[in-house]
Amino acid sequence: MYDLIIIGGGPAASAAGVYAARKKIKTLLVAESFGGQSIVSQDIQNWIGTPSISGYDLAQSFETHLRAQEDIEIETGELIKTVSKEGDVFVAMTEGGKRYETKTVLITTGGRRRKLGVKGEKEFDGKGVAYCSICDAPLFGGKVVAVVGGGNAGLEAVIDLLPYATKIYLLQRSGALKGDAVTQERIMQDPKVEVIFNATTLEIIGDSFVNELVYVDTTTNGFDKLTTRETHHLDVQGVFIEIGSLPNSELVKDVAATTPYGEIEVDVYGKTSMQGIWAAGDVTNLKYKQNNIAAGDAIRAVLNIYDYLMYNK
Amino acid sequence: MYDLIIIGGGPAASAAGVYAARKKIKTLLVAESFGGQSIVSQDIQNWIGTPSISGYDLAQSFETHLRAQEDIEIETGELIKTVSKEGDVFVAMTEGGKRYETKTVLITTGGRRRKLGVKGEKEFDGKGVAYCSICDAPLFGGKVVAVVGGGNAGLEAVIDLLPYATKIYLLQRSGALKGDAVTQERIMQDPKVEVIFNATTLEIIGDSFVNELVYVDTTTNGFDKLTTRETHHLDVQGVFIEIGSLPNSELVKDVAATTPYGEIEVDVYGKTSMQGIWAAGDVTNLKYKQNNIAAGDAIRAVLNIYDYLMYNK
Repeated sequence: MYDLIIIGGGPAASAAGVYAARKKIKTLLVAESFGGQSIVSQDIQNWIGTPSISGYDLAQSFETHLRAQEDIEIETGELIKTVSKEGDVFVAMTEGGKRYETKTVLITTGGRRRKLGVKGEKEFDGKGVAYCSICDAPLFGGKVVAVVGGGNAGLEAVIDLLPYATKIYLLQRSGALKGDAVTQERIMQDPKVEVIFNATTLEIIGDSFVNELVYVDTTTNGFDKLTTRETHHLDVQGVFIEIGSLPNSELVKDVAATTPYGEIEVDVYGKTSMQGIWAAGDVTNLKYKQNNIAAGDAIRAVLNIYDYLMYNK
Repeated sequence: MYDLIIIGGGPAASAAGVYAARKKIKTLLVAESFGGQSIVSQDIQNWIGTPSISGYDLAQSFETHLRAQEDIEIETGELIKTVSKEGDVFVAMTEGGKRYETKTVLITTGGRRRKLGVKGEKEFDGKGVAYCSICDAPLFGGKVVAVVGGGNAGLEAVIDLLPYATKIYLLQRSGALKGDAVTQERIMQDPKVEVIFNATTLEIIGDSFVNELVYVDTTTNGFDKLTTRETHHLDVQGVFIEIGSLPNSELVKDVAATTPYGEIEVDVYGKTSMQGIWAAGDVTNLKYKQNNIAAGDAIRAVLNIYDYLMYNK
């Protein structure tokens, strides 16, 4: 029986693990793998105190710090499928059927970006294809970029790119944008931005780096419903794919409240609707998903868990 | 007229400054000096991703990262005395009478630990004298330590030290502890802990490192009110001074709500009771003051300010 099980392998999990070990909480950390979503970034410039580091190296530094702690058990290569409650105890079950019992749980399973699933997307991930405009917009100074997705995430990516890119194409599958009206207005007014409606991305092309995006025009003739299906090529050095993200919250869906988007609802200390379960980082319903935020919130959750355990021994 | 003024020079201020610059928010950062409270720590082991670094070097890394940003104005050596509202504009006034105008303000002025004001306290700061048990307890493995202060902070310091120190003296000025009953019970039960009531610390003594604490016994004879005033010596290698901390919130006391302890009340995004003013880090009423937490919260506040400015241009 553990006092705490931390589930996840990103910055929130490592931060939580370091603090839990230093607090001598009897802890198991279960990670499918270490790294987190930003492990693919070529150049992270916003981990505070570190002006520039690759996502891989930053992830390594988190894991190294965690593994330097004496008082923590770590299991990797295991995926926790469900967390359930049996009496006063929480049970975490792995995909392979292993069972762990614990007094408290901290969910730091993060999220995953929705992918387009088109040719070239995976090949150029981190080589012009980006999924985080807050992180990566400054890398596209003086460049022409496409943003795929006309919801709030897409509009915000355009706003993030405005100070950097020389030209921004915003591709939206349907005939209208979906984000906030104020943001739409601001984007539409800017001569740098060209919104392309009824555009379905087909392929991302490049050499060592992205240099082209191919889309098909699906504009429908309202009368006879014919679509043009014309193929177009855009010369771009960057493609921001902003079609939403999915929180990895399936494992607690039966025990903790989530939003309609599947994000785990938490208070400022990471407490979920289920007493004894906390969550931190990209899996939660708090806005603004960033490495530093995830780490800080995970630490606050662990310190709160420590206080809770003191009163629930 | 700025879009944002960040006030402070610790990790929260640097984190906020980096993000504000990357978001191209028209920002002024005003710091009396850079560093924050942990700049005096000899060995910080809990800045995530960095297993061990001096407080000075960590503070340098924050300032270097901040100063690497192109789009931010930085004023140092200036103390903002008041923030006030004039119409739709906030005015930050320095001690010297300089006046800055801005649409939004982020307060990251941190806190300061209450000092005992006894001989040796300053001399051995970071050399056995410590003010943060969460941070420094692991440095006192196998050592005998004294904790000064019998309120919640003192009790929690004892709890933090239990897994590390071999013996812990808890010195309380009055005849009773003040912290939570549950924590008191747990401490009293532990044979490692010796609570000394009516103890007023007089001096901290050492060579290169603390080795002795001197206190006076102020036990009163209830009948004729004579006190013993006997002097006692404790052989200790560490002294944790836990008599409270003071948030540096005086500058906004007339515009934003604070707790009875002077901490600025904030929501999860750092919003204060005054629209247009945010706060993050040790100056706020959120529990658990840590560098990573301060940085993460400051970043979330800046991203929230960015959204606010978009709708309040």
